[in-house]
This record gives sequence, structure tokens and C-alpha cells, in this order.
Amino acid sequence: MAVYTDISDAELEAFLARYELGAPLSFKGVAEGVENSNFLLETETGRYFLTIYERRVRREDLPFFLGFMQHLARHGFPSATPIADREGRLLGELRAKPAAIVSFLTGLSVRRTTPTHCRAAGAGLAWLHEAAQGFDQTRVNDLGHAAWAGLFERLRGEAEALKPGLEAQIAGDVAHLAAAWPTGLPEGVIHADYFPDNVFFRGAAFAGAIDFYFAATDALAYDIGIALNAWCFEPDGSFNVTAARAFVAGYESRRPLLSAERQALPVLAHGAALRFFLTRLADWRSTPAGALVRPKDPLEYERKLAVHRAGLALFEAAP
Amino acid sequence: MAVYTDISDAELEAFLARYELGAPLSFKGVAEGVENSNFLLETETGRYFLTIYERRVRREDLPFFLGFMQHLARHGFPSATPIADREGRLLGELRAKPAAIVSFLTGLSVRRTTPTHCRAAGAGLAWLHEAAQGFDQTRVNDLGHAAWAGLFERLRGEAEALKPGLEAQIAGDVAHLAAAWPTGLPEGVIHADYFPDNVFFRGAAFAGAIDFYFAATDALAYDIGIALNAWCFEPDGSFNVTAARAFVAGYESRRPLLSAERQALPVLAHGAALRFFLTRLADWRSTPAGALVRPKDPLEYERKLAVHRAGLALFEAAP
Repeated sequence: MAVYTDISDAELEAFLARYELGAPLSFKGVAEGVENSNFLLETETGRYFLTIYERRVRREDLPFFLGFMQHLARHGFPSATPIADREGRLLGELRAKPAAIVSFLTGLSVRRTTPTHCRAAGAGLAWLHEAAQGFDQTRVNDLGHAAWAGLFERLRGEAEALKPGLEAQIAGDVAHLAAAWPTGLPEGVIHADYFPDNVFFRGAAFAGAIDFYFAATDALAYDIGIALNAWCFEPDGSFNVTAARAFVAGYESRRPLLSAERQALPVLAHGAALRFFLTRLADWRSTPAGALVRPKDPLEYERKLAVHRAGLALFEAAP
Repeated sequence: MAVYTDISDAELEAFLARYELGAPLSFKGVAEGVENSNFLLETETGRYFLTIYERRVRREDLPFFLGFMQHLARHGFPSATPIADREGRLLGELRAKPAAIVSFLTGLSVRRTTPTHCRAAGAGLAWLHEAAQGFDQTRVNDLGHAAWAGLFERLRGEAEALKPGLEAQIAGDVAHLAAAWPTGLPEGVIHADYFPDNVFFRGAAFAGAIDFYFAATDALAYDIGIALNAWCFEPDGSFNVTAARAFVAGYESRRPLLSAERQALPVLAHGAALRFFLTRLADWRSTPAGALVRPKDPLEYERKLAVHRAGLALFEAAP
């Protein structure tokens, strides 16, 4: 939950004057999004989200993120569309911070995901990858596999402090993944944070995705690896292979995977677990006690890493 | 900002099954309300607020609060209406806490109030008092004037710790108010927390009031005293008599005050400042460092008390 920057009615009206959205009717800070301040805004023309980007999002990345969201919406993918101001700009400024208005996306995120949700979410991710095709900007994935060794070097002590012996285990993960990481897989812009709280449903049907502020150019199948960690583990840490197969089957209902992509999924998921472990560990260390946002527990991903080390049995037999 | 109790999609659906509101379409925690957890809920039939009452609100008071809100709505006052479930109950339960659904009220609260807002807000408060007539329940104002001496006894040391010499000054306020407190003024159910963040506008026009969880039976003019503190002081602590006169004139445009009520306004406002000083001081002490909700500064009301001690020149001449 987060509203880091508070906005007065006068500031809101001055900001809205740049848009053709009519007068504000309602404005509420929303306890959603860890990275930014989010407000639900109703005007005479409809409902919107106003986002103020806090320090974690780099200003120079915002044209990519907003341009990508606009591209997705223009190609029929259900996601929040950035709203241009009278001069065609997607990005404005509030209290000296970047700010944008996006359309309101209806839907509910699901806390306890079932294989049915996983199948729908998998199909939704393939839809996203399809709609992303033709987007003409690229962004290096600065949290992608090339960054992990460097990230880990700064966190060795933290890993060991979290759990004795963990430093050596993570060093093993880093080395294994550097050697085993696949090359030549189909690339495109990936969501890179396709977690259940960023996916909306209407009933059991996929209704859209939000929060594209980690989107980057990378292997499309790596997005599946991220999602398998986020969607297919039980609260007790065990891997739900039924849910994982449902996710992949849903994905393949729209975009069949190459044989190389299917074979790479276990190592991609292992790498994705390392990525979220490392960034959570960094947040865990840097978050002061009493901060408004409680950092996510890195141990959740440490347990997933242990599952990946044992090998992920995703499919009944090699294809 | 506050969402103390988080709710899963499954819990929401189970709760909604008791109502005739249709399936949920959207559900967002709202950073609004210090006392409770609030969620903006959209279903197939419209938009609502779901509130989970946290420990500060006494469960046995909720039928009064919800009944009062229902009474106001039925008598045409613009406020959130509690929604009854299929069995006619206004109050339900979520995670073993009381919970209710109310209708969504459109409007914007104003940060920097002008005399124009004050006039409209005053008229809105008179409207509230009119609409409240005929409500057949009563509730003792447990934060009213009879409670202040006892509250202060427990906070003497805190007052002195906040500012040397303050204990004696507050003791003087308590004694003065006990002696000067008016009796025989017209009573009814008052809002008792009619602050700018609880009042909605559409443009400059009054659009309604929310947050009736301090409502109680008391002198109607005491509600004006509370509001004068909340609406008519500048950020530098000075009293804006133009704003105060506008508030009272707005109130009197719907409900002319008795001469005794007008004369009592300075002492009622003084008492209201004491009430908010004392409760803020109590919260200041009891809030642990790093709590999600930052307590409001009692010194703001200490400065208002100083203005009241000097005497509030509300009207040009005695009526």
C-alpha cells in the first residue's frame, strides 16, 4: 500500500487543466502499487488512474513504459491506456515528480490462484506477447540474467546473514545459471513482473494486466519462468506442477512454444527465482524499520530456489 | 491512509454473496480513513465502499452510526447510505471484524478551504442537522464536555512533556470550560468530526458529508464549534474571522441560530479545541514509532487553544 506523494485539490485541478478530461468528481488515494503513488480519479468523462512516479522508477524509462502501454492498448490488449494531454504528451509533472494519467481497467486480482486461473493467465501472457510485437522501442532488462552476478556480489554478506550457508548456495546458482542460460530464444518486450496482483480477472476469465514498470526486452519464455514462480507454488513452498502445466498450456493455446523454449523453462524459472530473491534481499536490507511499505520476504524465493536446484519436472516426458 | 485488514478475492465473494449487489468487478484498498480499512468496490450494480471496522470503533456503537447514516440518506441528505443484505442487516462480519457496505458518494474534499467553501460547508452542516431530526436513537458523546476533565487527568504528564507550562494552561481551560459551558441549547445528533476531509464538494458546491463514526447526541451549535476550529484557522495558526462568519452565515441560511447559540459559539469552539487537543495528545502518546498511520500533531490544537483563551471575536457587535 502506498501513497507517498499527497496532492491537494488545487494541484489536481491545475494538473487536469492540461487534459481534456473535464472537471474532477472524485479523487482517492489507492493502497496499491509498492513503487508509486496511485490515485483513482473520476472526472466528467470517466474513470482514470493518476500515478506519480516515485524515486524507484527512472524518469528516463517512463517514455518506454508509457509508449509500451499505449502500443498494447492500440493493439487490443486489455491494459490501462496512457491518456495524452492537449499537446499529445503522455507524461506530466506533479510536485516535481513525473506523473501520468491512464485509463481505469476493471477486474479483480486473485489471491489464491487455481489451475483454472493459471490457464487463463498463461493465455493472457501469450496475448500480451503477441500484442507487443511491432513495438519499435527496446529497453535493456537491467534486472535480467546479465545483472545477477553483479547484484549478488554486493549482497554476499546479506545472504549469509539471512541464513548460514546461503552465500555459497547462491554463488552456485549464479554460476550454474551463467553456464546454462539459453541463447537464441525468441525475444520481445516482456512484462517481467507478471504476478497475480498484476493480472485482472472477471470471474474466471482473464480481464487484463497492469503495472508495466519492469517491462524490458528479453526472451519471451523468461516471462513464463517469472510467472511459474509467482503463480505455481503453494503457500507451503511446494511446486504445483498441475498449475504450471495449466499455465503453459494456456500460453500455448495462443502462442505455441518452440522446442528450445519448452526445454529452457526450468532454467528460465530458476533464473527468475534468483532475480526476485536478489532484489528482495536488497530491499530487505535497505528498508528502514517502520517504513510505510513492508518489504517482501526474500526467504520465500530462497525456498523456490531450493526447488529449482532439485530440478523442475515440468513435463511428463521430454518433447 | 490505512488498510489494516486485507481481504482476498475469495473472502470478498463469500461476503458479497449475502448481498444483492451482483458479482464484483473491481476492488481496491483506499488510502482514506484513519480508523478503519476502506475498500472501493465495484459490482455489476454500481459502486460502493466496503468498510472493515478496526478496534477504535466500538462494535456496540455501529448500529447507531449505520442507522444514522441510513436515516440521513432517507431524508435526502447527501451521504453514503448503508446497504442492507438479503436479510435486511446493515452490519456483517469479515475476518471476525464488523464490516458494512455503503453507497459511493461522489465529490472532492478540499485541502485549502476558502470562505466560499466555508459558507457552503456551513449550509451543509445545517442541512445535516435538519435531516437528522426525527432519528429515534441517541448516543452519549463520550468525547463531549463531560469527558474532558477525566481525559485530562490521565494526560497531565503528557501535556507538560509536550511543552513546559502546558499542564497548568490546560487545567485552566478545563476549569474555565466546566464553569462556562452552556446548557439548554438545542440538541440533536451531531456529526462531531465535520472536518474538511469529511466534506465533499462538486466545484464550489456542497456535495455531501462522510465518516459519521463520531456522531453523538449533543448541542447542535457544538458541531459549529468543532467546524470553526477545523475550517477557519490559517496554516500559521491565525483565526480567519471572515471564513468563520461565512461558515455561520451559511449555516444560518438553512437554520437560523438562537441568540443563546450565537453567544455560546466562542466557548463551544474553545471546548472543541480542547477535545481535539486531548484526543490527539492521547494518540500521540500511544502510537508506536513506525506505525502505519502518523498521529496528528496535538500542537496544532494547542495553538488554537491559545487563540480561544484570548477570546474569539466572531461577530462585529454583540447581537
